[in-house]
Amino acid sequence: MVDKALGGAGLRGQVAGETALCTVGKSGSGLTYCGYDIAELAEKVSFEEVAYLLAHGELPNQQQLNDYRGRLQAKRGLPQALKDVLERIPADAHPMDVMRTGCSMLGNLETEESFAQADDSIERLLAAFPSMLLYWYHFSHNGKRIDTETDDESIGSHFLHLLHGEKPSQLHADVMNTSLILYAEHEFNASTFTARVCASTLSDIHSCVTGAIGSLRGPLHGGANEAAMELIEDMQSPADAEKKLMDMLANKAKIMGFGHAIYREFDPRNAIIKRWSEKLAQEYGDSRLYDVSVRCEEVMWREKKLFPNADFFHASAYHYMGIPTKLFTPIFVMSRVSGWTAHVKEQRANNRIIRPSADYTGPGPRKVPALSERK
Amino acid sequence: MVDKALGGAGLRGQVAGETALCTVGKSGSGLTYCGYDIAELAEKVSFEEVAYLLAHGELPNQQQLNDYRGRLQAKRGLPQALKDVLERIPADAHPMDVMRTGCSMLGNLETEESFAQADDSIERLLAAFPSMLLYWYHFSHNGKRIDTETDDESIGSHFLHLLHGEKPSQLHADVMNTSLILYAEHEFNASTFTARVCASTLSDIHSCVTGAIGSLRGPLHGGANEAAMELIEDMQSPADAEKKLMDMLANKAKIMGFGHAIYREFDPRNAIIKRWSEKLAQEYGDSRLYDVSVRCEEVMWREKKLFPNADFFHASAYHYMGIPTKLFTPIFVMSRVSGWTAHVKEQRANNRIIRPSADYTGPGPRKVPALSERK
Repeated sequence: MVDKALGGAGLRGQVAGETALCTVGKSGSGLTYCGYDIAELAEKVSFEEVAYLLAHGELPNQQQLNDYRGRLQAKRGLPQALKDVLERIPADAHPMDVMRTGCSMLGNLETEESFAQADDSIERLLAAFPSMLLYWYHFSHNGKRIDTETDDESIGSHFLHLLHGEKPSQLHADVMNTSLILYAEHEFNASTFTARVCASTLSDIHSCVTGAIGSLRGPLHGGANEAAMELIEDMQSPADAEKKLMDMLANKAKIMGFGHAIYREFDPRNAIIKRWSEKLAQEYGDSRLYDVSVRCEEVMWREKKLFPNADFFHASAYHYMGIPTKLFTPIFVMSRVSGWTAHVKEQRANNRIIRPSADYTGPGPRKVPALSERK
Repeated sequence: MVDKALGGAGLRGQVAGETALCTVGKSGSGLTYCGYDIAELAEKVSFEEVAYLLAHGELPNQQQLNDYRGRLQAKRGLPQALKDVLERIPADAHPMDVMRTGCSMLGNLETEESFAQADDSIERLLAAFPSMLLYWYHFSHNGKRIDTETDDESIGSHFLHLLHGEKPSQLHADVMNTSLILYAEHEFNASTFTARVCASTLSDIHSCVTGAIGSLRGPLHGGANEAAMELIEDMQSPADAEKKLMDMLANKAKIMGFGHAIYREFDPRNAIIKRWSEKLAQEYGDSRLYDVSVRCEEVMWREKKLFPNADFFHASAYHYMGIPTKLFTPIFVMSRVSGWTAHVKEQRANNRIIRPSADYTGPGPRKVPALSERK
């Protein structure tokens, strides 16, 4: 028997499986990873601890964390064949296509031959994504072949170091750390669900992550922080922001970075990244982007009862750290790969191939006409 | 409200959307593409007509078919940057990883910038997949850089021509044509559903197809024809096949190429490819593989009431045409890309992001312990 209620509705509100990794919007409007509230994680731990938590179900102790960090640091170098591939990708490529291709290529060079290798492959991807992105970025934009091995302690610092060619300040390292925590995991969102469908065929981990990157690339999913940046960068002041936003609303334009498919009252990640954006504005010495963002938040709530989601204040925060807008969504990949791969492990551990049905709406049975008789 | 019945069951029997492209197992045990029965299509038309049908909803007339073939022929060449990438993929890579990476790389070089370009990109993928696969194959295995542009009329002939370095016989061209038709489309199977989830974020077509390839790579999905070949290649005679199969059944070994998630009595594609395998065996002058396959079919029905699916007689058929076993699943890609991309177009035309929910089975709310207190 088929449940007609599902047809065409994007499976919204329908349970497609089980997870022990995450709750979204349960108990208030919260977000939890393995039972820990996102706000407490963002305040107290490192992204590496969160990635370890998602991979293993528990936070690491000191020794486990030291070992884990050591392995991640040791896996930042890229094989020559992968560098050769990245050098063939033009500067005007979509950076998400670069991530997707880099991940897929790595699967050729360091194939996950059995599921026993999953943790190795996952750590490799966590360590190598910033290296891949910035190797391509510097080569395609500046003709420079960078050394991707740094001794930075964290993935966030490693990323900023490779981007700017120098170790980041403590403030910037802290913001990157928090940002990576906030984006790490979000239950059965479209990219994670892509990874699980792929995993359900018992495919390899590079296929699962490559597919997930492709889904995150879509403007309805991962591109909202970039779209938020495009929205605010032309706003000269709070008053200007108010005027432009009211014009857009009057024209029924889609405003990116507000509202959420699951959260109804607020996005628990917003207050956290908003505070960091304010601190960065103070350090930067020009609070325009932060101020216009605050005004946007006020106007959208007043006019539409819509709240900023995780993406909105990320735009100003990333910009204050000198990150080019087109690299915003790839940062999402560097973080979410921890959640995707945890879901892959979970799907494998209790698997049935994900193969739904469809309602047929096409032509009834018909005979094949001869070629000469077709109109 | 959440439907608990779905949890963990791989969405089996649950409607996840609508399609006008295909029915599986409706009206008897049939398979139809846009209302046409698979048996009639396999007898009367070319794969190119089927690919056109899936892309446009109607079979082409003579002029449309001529134009379509012309465009497909003109798109067989590969850009140098893509060849460079293929040359970096080692000979021992999984050929599905090659297809996945080639597709992803092409997305960097010939990005689908707007959905208006979809048909161009689809035709390009149909034309270029055989070229990609065999460029990599000949370079990595024989150090040879082949010219991928041929004047063969069909995709199947183009593939065999590139593989063997000469135009195929009419019989082989006919078998490839039929094979590509049989594999072209199959409703919401896991790889197609992957493509639709990706499409639902409004991502580009290369992301959708790259993700689908990753899912098809899984041994529960696309690898069954290769597994069938591994099963039959060591069987020396029908009597030997019977003995080996009975031993495997006694040991509860999984026998690939039999049974199906949707079909209950028979797979409508089996009788068609079986006939071709028999003809190829006669031409080849050694019917061992066909004969052992027939015996396997008899034993599996007698012992388990399981029937061969589309994959089983494909193994002997492909082998008789000199196709290396590891290229079997990539042929599936060359065909199914027609179905995947038709589903992408259909998803885009009536889209809502596919974002199901999950039942939470993890730890309840807990406090983050200090690092020094963790066990």
